[in-house]
Amino acid sequence: MVNQQFAFALHTLSILAVNTNGAMTSEFIAASVNTNPVVIRRLLSKLSKSSLVETQLGKNGGVRLKKAPSEITLKDIYESLYEKSLISASAKEANKKCPISCKMKQITQDIIDHTEQATIKYLESVTLSDIQKQLL
Amino acid sequence: MVNQQFAFALHTLSILAVNTNGAMTSEFIAASVNTNPVVIRRLLSKLSKSSLVETQLGKNGGVRLKKAPSEITLKDIYESLYEKSLISASAKEANKKCPISCKMKQITQDIIDHTEQATIKYLESVTLSDIQKQLL
Repeated sequence: MVNQQFAFALHTLSILAVNTNGAMTSEFIAASVNTNPVVIRRLLSKLSKSSLVETQLGKNGGVRLKKAPSEITLKDIYESLYEKSLISASAKEANKKCPISCKMKQITQDIIDHTEQATIKYLESVTLSDIQKQLL
Repeated sequence: MVNQQFAFALHTLSILAVNTNGAMTSEFIAASVNTNPVVIRRLLSKLSKSSLVETQLGKNGGVRLKKAPSEITLKDIYESLYEKSLISASAKEANKKCPISCKMKQITQDIIDHTEQATIKYLESVTLSDIQKQLL
């Protein structure tokens, strides 16, 4: 179990997908997610960097989707949040005196890559539009 | 990125799979993994609980595989370590006043379940015997 970032991001983007009344505030989103607006703003900053949302300043300002829900996949959301794989390779150096230790890094990395590919393959098959349909 | 437990466990079990000279000590394994023996012992305790290894006490004691490498899949290793999915659902209560909030928990859980299934499907297709072959 890592953290709730993915769940929070999905919830946030789903609200923005369902909402058709202009930009929304982080306070409103936070109330629905049931967390602190600071947590949502930090999350929105990441989602903004990967061009999934855009922020409008000033009166009536807030955040909105930057793309159509059908153009946002769960893979896009996942990749906005996690730079590295959820299962990580050993950060330890290989023990050079041990032939097994020398080979394990590459073997483990291959497995992690395959695991990641399996996850990504599923995540890119689902769009925010699919989630939107379940909410309407 | 979670932690290195999976990488350490795979390394540990791979050494045990390759080794044919009786039981091995946690010190020997730790030297190959390049970590502290305490970390390995804690890991072995989990792997022992799921019947992947067995410990022999006394002189010439140590740890060995409890099953043939061909009978241990990466799924078995993964499930020994992680009780819950790597991506977690929100631990927050739904905001009962918000219809979207009320539906998001189930929607998110379905996505997490599918992600987990995709990972597991790959992991159960690889056995420790496959890793052993790459090491010999």
